[in-house]
Amino acid sequence: MSAHSGTVKHVVHFVYLLVMVFALISSAATAQAPQAPPPAINVMPMPATVTVGAGRLMVPKTFSVAIAGYSDPKLEHAAQRFLRDLGRQTGYFVSDRLADVGHATLVIHADHRSEPIQDLGEDESYVLDVSGAGAKLSAPNPLGVMHGLQTVLQLVDVTPDGYAAPAVHIEDSPRFPWRGLSIDVSRHFITMATLKRNVDAMAAVKMNVLHLHLSDDQGFRLESKEFPKLQERGSDGLYYLQSEMRELIAYASDRGIRVVPEFDMPGHSTAWFVGYPELSSGPGPYQIERRWGIFDPAMDPTRESTYKFLDRFIAEMVSIFPDRYFHIGGDEVNGKQWDANPKIHEFMQAHNLKSDQELQQYFTDRVEKIVSKHRRFMVGWDEILTPGMPKDIVIQSWRGQDSLAEAARQGYRGILSSGYYLDAMAPAAQHYLVDPLAGADATLTPAQQKLILGGEACMWEEFASDESVESRIWPRAAAIAERLWSPQQVQDVNSMYRRMGAVSAQLEELGLMHRSSSEVMLARIAGTDDIAALQLLARAVQPASITIRETEAEKAGGIQTSDVPLNRMVDAIAPESEDARKFSAAVDQFIASKFQDAAAESHIRRKLTEWRDNDSALQPLLQNSFLLQEVAPVSQNLALLGAAGLQALDCIDARETAPPEWKLQQVAMMQQAAKPTGDLVLAIAPAVQKLVEASSAAAVAAP
Amino acid sequence: MSAHSGTVKHVVHFVYLLVMVFALISSAATAQAPQAPPPAINVMPMPATVTVGAGRLMVPKTFSVAIAGYSDPKLEHAAQRFLRDLGRQTGYFVSDRLADVGHATLVIHADHRSEPIQDLGEDESYVLDVSGAGAKLSAPNPLGVMHGLQTVLQLVDVTPDGYAAPAVHIEDSPRFPWRGLSIDVSRHFITMATLKRNVDAMAAVKMNVLHLHLSDDQGFRLESKEFPKLQERGSDGLYYLQSEMRELIAYASDRGIRVVPEFDMPGHSTAWFVGYPELSSGPGPYQIERRWGIFDPAMDPTRESTYKFLDRFIAEMVSIFPDRYFHIGGDEVNGKQWDANPKIHEFMQAHNLKSDQELQQYFTDRVEKIVSKHRRFMVGWDEILTPGMPKDIVIQSWRGQDSLAEAARQGYRGILSSGYYLDAMAPAAQHYLVDPLAGADATLTPAQQKLILGGEACMWEEFASDESVESRIWPRAAAIAERLWSPQQVQDVNSMYRRMGAVSAQLEELGLMHRSSSEVMLARIAGTDDIAALQLLARAVQPASITIRETEAEKAGGIQTSDVPLNRMVDAIAPESEDARKFSAAVDQFIASKFQDAAAESHIRRKLTEWRDNDSALQPLLQNSFLLQEVAPVSQNLALLGAAGLQALDCIDARETAPPEWKLQQVAMMQQAAKPTGDLVLAIAPAVQKLVEASSAAAVAAP
Repeated sequence: MSAHSGTVKHVVHFVYLLVMVFALISSAATAQAPQAPPPAINVMPMPATVTVGAGRLMVPKTFSVAIAGYSDPKLEHAAQRFLRDLGRQTGYFVSDRLADVGHATLVIHADHRSEPIQDLGEDESYVLDVSGAGAKLSAPNPLGVMHGLQTVLQLVDVTPDGYAAPAVHIEDSPRFPWRGLSIDVSRHFITMATLKRNVDAMAAVKMNVLHLHLSDDQGFRLESKEFPKLQERGSDGLYYLQSEMRELIAYASDRGIRVVPEFDMPGHSTAWFVGYPELSSGPGPYQIERRWGIFDPAMDPTRESTYKFLDRFIAEMVSIFPDRYFHIGGDEVNGKQWDANPKIHEFMQAHNLKSDQELQQYFTDRVEKIVSKHRRFMVGWDEILTPGMPKDIVIQSWRGQDSLAEAARQGYRGILSSGYYLDAMAPAAQHYLVDPLAGADATLTPAQQKLILGGEACMWEEFASDESVESRIWPRAAAIAERLWSPQQVQDVNSMYRRMGAVSAQLEELGLMHRSSSEVMLARIAGTDDIAALQLLARAVQPASITIRETEAEKAGGIQTSDVPLNRMVDAIAPESEDARKFSAAVDQFIASKFQDAAAESHIRRKLTEWRDNDSALQPLLQNSFLLQEVAPVSQNLALLGAAGLQALDCIDARETAPPEWKLQQVAMMQQAAKPTGDLVLAIAPAVQKLVEASSAAAVAAP
Repeated sequence: MSAHSGTVKHVVHFVYLLVMVFALISSAATAQAPQAPPPAINVMPMPATVTVGAGRLMVPKTFSVAIAGYSDPKLEHAAQRFLRDLGRQTGYFVSDRLADVGHATLVIHADHRSEPIQDLGEDESYVLDVSGAGAKLSAPNPLGVMHGLQTVLQLVDVTPDGYAAPAVHIEDSPRFPWRGLSIDVSRHFITMATLKRNVDAMAAVKMNVLHLHLSDDQGFRLESKEFPKLQERGSDGLYYLQSEMRELIAYASDRGIRVVPEFDMPGHSTAWFVGYPELSSGPGPYQIERRWGIFDPAMDPTRESTYKFLDRFIAEMVSIFPDRYFHIGGDEVNGKQWDANPKIHEFMQAHNLKSDQELQQYFTDRVEKIVSKHRRFMVGWDEILTPGMPKDIVIQSWRGQDSLAEAARQGYRGILSSGYYLDAMAPAAQHYLVDPLAGADATLTPAQQKLILGGEACMWEEFASDESVESRIWPRAAAIAERLWSPQQVQDVNSMYRRMGAVSAQLEELGLMHRSSSEVMLARIAGTDDIAALQLLARAVQPASITIRETEAEKAGGIQTSDVPLNRMVDAIAPESEDARKFSAAVDQFIASKFQDAAAESHIRRKLTEWRDNDSALQPLLQNSFLLQEVAPVSQNLALLGAAGLQALDCIDARETAPPEWKLQQVAMMQQAAKPTGDLVLAIAPAVQKLVEASSAAAVAAP
């Protein structure tokens, strides 16, 4: 599966997404009206219920944890990990030895164990009490304890007189039991170290499923001992050893996270055929696919040998992945190889299969029986839902709530990924307001709604690699994590962004590299680490949407391939400009105050001045690096925007109405500047334009 | 061993160091006069001979490497690692598969293998030719190839039309065969991940010995299976498994780096006695030492059981560490436990040992025989050099060149560490100008000089921990690496700083965290990642010398212990302020130009303005975090310095002489501001003072 296998489909998907978002924003606005303001704590996802008390718990360097009642290694690891993380967040040398109950700052109580193999729908709730005297965390089992410990870590903050956590009473449990992050490790290989850091981050925001897209046309990424040519010929040497994968699974399990493997079939499978062409429906031979898109090769559903292969293969894989769910992909088969193969045509006639879709249905049915034989529930994309499938399969939807609703009405469980594609380069708020139970799903009966298990953020890797993937996922995935954990009415976007900023800083303390890696990439692009001017520009821009990037990539180099470096400005910058968001908020605030808000104006003037003056400071860098040539016009536009905004501000200050012809000219310039230059967008342009337009009304509004 | 076991000794050491440095700077200035300017390539250490040719080699994304002639896994790993590193430095997806000789961009040729266990003094030379058509690297063995590959990596830089390396002919070999970095993992534990990153950095600057100070009073850090209570009771659970150590050794060996273990004895050994009090000369029981300093516990040299223990222990350790050198410390025994023990007194009389020193000599002699029996050469600090020692031991000198010269005259080999203590927080230039063959060593005969094997940068960990150690070592250790590799006359400090800056950026591309970790610490201190104002201040200050920090620490909290957090501003900032160095250079340039150099003035004015205006921007952060209270007066002083400098500049521009009373007042203020506030120093103060003083001469100097 991929977000971007075909531009047409993608555009449809993207438009659909936008419609959904607007629908959600409206309904959110309605739903939100009676809500109290969200509690001012930096916890994300926002807990189900929070009561902020009086006082706070000081966090000394001798902070200690005790386990009262039930205990096991998983619980002990969680407590020790908490102490080490607390050390990272404070710089204290916190001992990870557990204390006696009588002497501990935090006492943990679990009633019983969690399942040895973590299962969907286990109780993940917890109750946390923090007071000046200490903290108490109770949960039915270690999973809830882990979540509660993450809440405690997020409550701890620096204060004028030490580290402290506010007094709170929290009763918390997730809204959905399946809160996933899917990472495509096929199109570009992602190292184990990066995967582990992602697991750390997932645990911090209470996600509980890591879905690995392990094979696709562009690479087969896991060692098979039964069929070693899969990785030997299908991976360019970039694959995980089974021992490494087992270690990752144990690492994730220790943190309350299931690992669900996906091996995409019968399409998206060219990489399998490099070593095993006999699996395919065409003549071969095959090479690893270097391009992006949907390709013809597909497994041959008509030969018994295919199922024998898959039986042995799945048997081997379930010996590695203990999770009860096994993802077979199943998406985007174009059927061309089937249509071109006379034997397949014969088989279809003999079995009364009238279309490629019916042939795929036959395949899926056979594979489901194999998966089921190996005691796993099958998961697949929308396409696998065909008549006669057993009710215990799970549909992952790239198509959206309509598709999930249809499945649920038929009694199938589903998880939503439409709207959660992180590689689309959409703002966090857009993902945040996509609700699994909105749209058609909102019309389901309560029993049917229960079949919507949750969702998964998806990170497809056409345009991300090991060094950039972290900044593509974090911190925006935290917004999706909140959507899947917190009550539906938690929808305050400002509160979300404030807390996402805190989470982002926390993740860096825990070792994530979503920011530091971007800094290193910018320095590499410039060929120097004296890059203040480049950073200033970098913070004002953001990547164009992925559809534009696809179009640009095709214009620039014909069909894009996996050999094209991802070492440009667009790869180094954050998906969403925080500077633009804050500037835009200041402009709104300034206009709403009828130009009286001095703090907002000061912020606006400072930023505009920086932007206006940056181009000359950036020139030496621009001239030094071929990678910055494409950035030069963006930098010039930034200077123009800064200058225009300052002129507007001067008009406003002088209580003069800006001349209409000036305004027209500026607006034309700004509309130009707001368009993507290549695949970079000046994210600050709309707010500058708003300011310029307001300046024509300034004199009128003056007191 | 430690730099700072006693303040008195340390001060003596520090003064001595300063004297040495001044001596060296003078001699350097003399020696340098006839030298040609250093070649303008970003290679560090500077190669022995460099001829820059015409043209350059473009580095395409298909850059490939072939091995011609001799090959083995070590050489192949080196070539593949080079390709992966090249990928990190360019963002290209460089394949690490080796190519055929006919089709490779770079062809490697080695004559023969290197020693299976890397030995001191192996040939590490290489010859590199880079032209527009390709590159050729030849060396006698894989060690030279590895060094040559690092040179190639450093030659590659971004240019206006692509990545490229200048055409060069380089013939290179090291001046000294022992180029080490010693890391104290006892006083604060350093993780394996951090050690590996240090190995990566060492390889980049052609260092070849990682010396691990594995035990001291404050911790025993390696698993012993023979004597498991060593780590179980002596480490707080913070120790390396033998399997981890073996992996580190293999990792280092693959990169041409030997690993020399140090187990300090008979003093600095409290951590051994927690589990094995019978080894000690006192009654016990013992606890892990939490303070810094020199302590009384010492091994009992009079009991045969001590030597039986050490024999078994050393046998076990040499089975882990294949290196032919084994470090037994041997420093700083205060003898108090020996003096207080009647049985030891009896033994000394019976054996005609007249002093504690003679008793230690007896001990060292016995230990040397054990080390020797296990086919290792003994290494120890200055104190182990006593009459009758075999000539194959090696003296590591914290005392300096006099001590090494004395040893060399007696026929002993030595390595210099005096002057290379990275935790002293001295500027890179100071370490850079300390030469192993200066001072008394310069008076040795050529044969005796050959006994000076090189040196080791030392990182003691009283005031560094896993998160700060990298920024304490890098990039300054690169200056010491150059001293130990490059010809003696390579002494141009400006060239060194320019190239050190390039190496620093390169190391971050390779995964080092010396900068990113500092950023994360600053954000943690502030409790937000909106820290531009704090970064600006951070770049203008540097840590006070370690003697001041020791004094401050004792004032603040009595005797410092290992429980005291290293989470303050002083721990997050770089040891040396690059902003101050550049500002100072601009001031010198401006004054030398008789105030005509507009670029220098513009730089000066910009920095002064930033500094003057920063305090108000910083206020919200200062008020938010208890960790920033100590920073408030420093920030105020920075603002005062900025204002004073700007006034001086205005005087100069107006061709007015600043009024003498103003100048007096400002100088008094600046002298105050230049003093350490706590353990922070405003590194920019001297240059501002210079500017203010120059302003009184400005009118005179005006044209």
